[in-house]
Amino acid sequence: MRIGVLGAGQLGRMLALAGYPLAKTFVFYDMSGSPSAGLGEVMIDRDGKYLDDFLSRVDRVTYEFEHLPVEVAETLAKEKPVHPCPRALQVCQNREAEKTLFGQLGIPTPQWKVADSAESLKAAAEELGCPVVAKSITEGYDGKGQAVLKDPEEAASAWETIGHQRVIVEKFVNFSREVSIIAVRAEDGDVAFYPMAENTHHEGILRYSIAPAPSMTPEIQDDAERYIRALLNEMEYVGVLTLELFETDDGLVANEMAPRVHNSGHWTIEGAMTSQFENHIRAVSGHPLGNVAPRGLSCMINIIGEHGDIDRMLELPYAHVHLYNKGERPGRKLGHVNILADSYEELVWRVRNCAQFLPGCPDFTSSLTARG
Amino acid sequence: MRIGVLGAGQLGRMLALAGYPLAKTFVFYDMSGSPSAGLGEVMIDRDGKYLDDFLSRVDRVTYEFEHLPVEVAETLAKEKPVHPCPRALQVCQNREAEKTLFGQLGIPTPQWKVADSAESLKAAAEELGCPVVAKSITEGYDGKGQAVLKDPEEAASAWETIGHQRVIVEKFVNFSREVSIIAVRAEDGDVAFYPMAENTHHEGILRYSIAPAPSMTPEIQDDAERYIRALLNEMEYVGVLTLELFETDDGLVANEMAPRVHNSGHWTIEGAMTSQFENHIRAVSGHPLGNVAPRGLSCMINIIGEHGDIDRMLELPYAHVHLYNKGERPGRKLGHVNILADSYEELVWRVRNCAQFLPGCPDFTSSLTARG
Repeated sequence: MRIGVLGAGQLGRMLALAGYPLAKTFVFYDMSGSPSAGLGEVMIDRDGKYLDDFLSRVDRVTYEFEHLPVEVAETLAKEKPVHPCPRALQVCQNREAEKTLFGQLGIPTPQWKVADSAESLKAAAEELGCPVVAKSITEGYDGKGQAVLKDPEEAASAWETIGHQRVIVEKFVNFSREVSIIAVRAEDGDVAFYPMAENTHHEGILRYSIAPAPSMTPEIQDDAERYIRALLNEMEYVGVLTLELFETDDGLVANEMAPRVHNSGHWTIEGAMTSQFENHIRAVSGHPLGNVAPRGLSCMINIIGEHGDIDRMLELPYAHVHLYNKGERPGRKLGHVNILADSYEELVWRVRNCAQFLPGCPDFTSSLTARG
Repeated sequence: MRIGVLGAGQLGRMLALAGYPLAKTFVFYDMSGSPSAGLGEVMIDRDGKYLDDFLSRVDRVTYEFEHLPVEVAETLAKEKPVHPCPRALQVCQNREAEKTLFGQLGIPTPQWKVADSAESLKAAAEELGCPVVAKSITEGYDGKGQAVLKDPEEAASAWETIGHQRVIVEKFVNFSREVSIIAVRAEDGDVAFYPMAENTHHEGILRYSIAPAPSMTPEIQDDAERYIRALLNEMEYVGVLTLELFETDDGLVANEMAPRVHNSGHWTIEGAMTSQFENHIRAVSGHPLGNVAPRGLSCMINIIGEHGDIDRMLELPYAHVHLYNKGERPGRKLGHVNILADSYEELVWRVRNCAQFLPGCPDFTSSLTARG
């Protein structure tokens, strides 16, 4: 079976590495002109002229990147199965649609309002109570098109900064930590849930994911599973879906979803019986889902900007290095290291030991280290 | 780093799958005209005209197949590092050289003699005591060019059957089981040993490998490590080496070695902290070796001739399916399944459960099932 992947970055690369052992072959369709998948056949098509050609070379289509035109996915879906469904793209590309869907399905979100002018932004900030964060409805990615308002008086300048016609205004959530749940749904409707991960960001980029998340009660895990199951079933979704959440004193609050394999699930390569990449390929290909049980405790450390001392990391008997074969550039995701351990205490020690070989890697702080 | 691989079968494929995460790229040089690696760049060169071109595209050279002309490896080694060394090829291609080296290094072998005529074959059979097995000195592969003599009188017809100028005659070994040890040596001389595997053959093809081998005493593991270490150091070998052995009442007896990753090490993909494939790539690339510790108990089941019911195997929560994307043909290795378990009792049950989906798979018999 030939799988067509829209996008050709490291997620596509890792999908392919998981898919070859299932006898899949891969064609990447790249719209950015800078593919980094590094294996499989790559079609570069900035002008969208070769979609027919792409379609003729593949049996099924998936994507590793949600900022692609929904019309492209819909056009493709008329000819070949496209998983996940184009509707998932549509929802993820529009924060208003996403928050509305969350609300309809009973998934808690921060309080939110829509504003379409500096005046209505000010009014929303007053009603919700500052601080609030205002985000463009569309094209939001990695913190672009956002502004924080500490006072409603900042509305005019915030509106200017964002530069969009329509923004979503969210009340700040007082959270104890950021977590995510990754789930996969098969063509026959079967659903499986990975244990949740605890995520640590620094300068807007994910740095560490620990899984299973420490001190996670079964009730919280159940809540997360109920929320993501509702999304999967509502969309008749096929493949891996990620839901990012805040953990608060009042339970989980959904931040956003990603219709794809996710950086906070990279720990599954060695840390789970079946990786998120293999499970996505299984689902997209119509196979049964694989076992999502963890194998011990894991922490994923992202390699950002600089590679650091790879050989020293390769010497660590508990580390698994995954490089994307990309050039160094500030803020760029170049790879990740999965650390395995049998106890959280051991995990903290090992993560710190590995992180010393990564220049610019922020100190490892998590719920594990915040105590005392 | 660009790694050139001589040969382009499933072993090369799995080397590449392990090497991409270490930022390696792969060029396969195929002399047979039927590559099956399925990823990376493949050069088909039946007449050996494009070796220069191959060399210009790679930084280091390795091989996945030991039946290639030693002169080719030697020519390449003048220009780029070739690991393992061409001498390893030379030894493995000549049973007399191999047995002689084993003897020099104190590695026990079956008693053996060389014969260069039907008459000397008869004499050897008489001296050693039948049954004996006579094998061509060169070009031996998968049981070709061999004959068993139950009586010295069979020498003439055996000589005819083998059809070589020089044969090695070995006394039969009364062994309790077949085992193998896989080790890896780094450029700096560091050596690591995987736990031994117990191997079950059927019709001359490996069917099952259990690792760590059950009921293996530390003394026997130590012996095997001492033997393979002697080989690695004597040859100043870099990469993965496999030594196949018989376990007898008097200890281990060496059968043969393979200068490469080996079918009896496929369990390491999920069953060890670092797979044999990754460790070979690490060694060949000059990196430190990875941790060879097992992760639980494993049994590898080869998929031979027919694929069987892959979807049923994918449903098993303890099975990992690895397909080579090859067409079905009797006796052909099409893939393997790695079964994981926490106890040998559980392992037996799981292996049998999986094997029922593989048509023509022989009943699972091993030291685990032979008891009672």
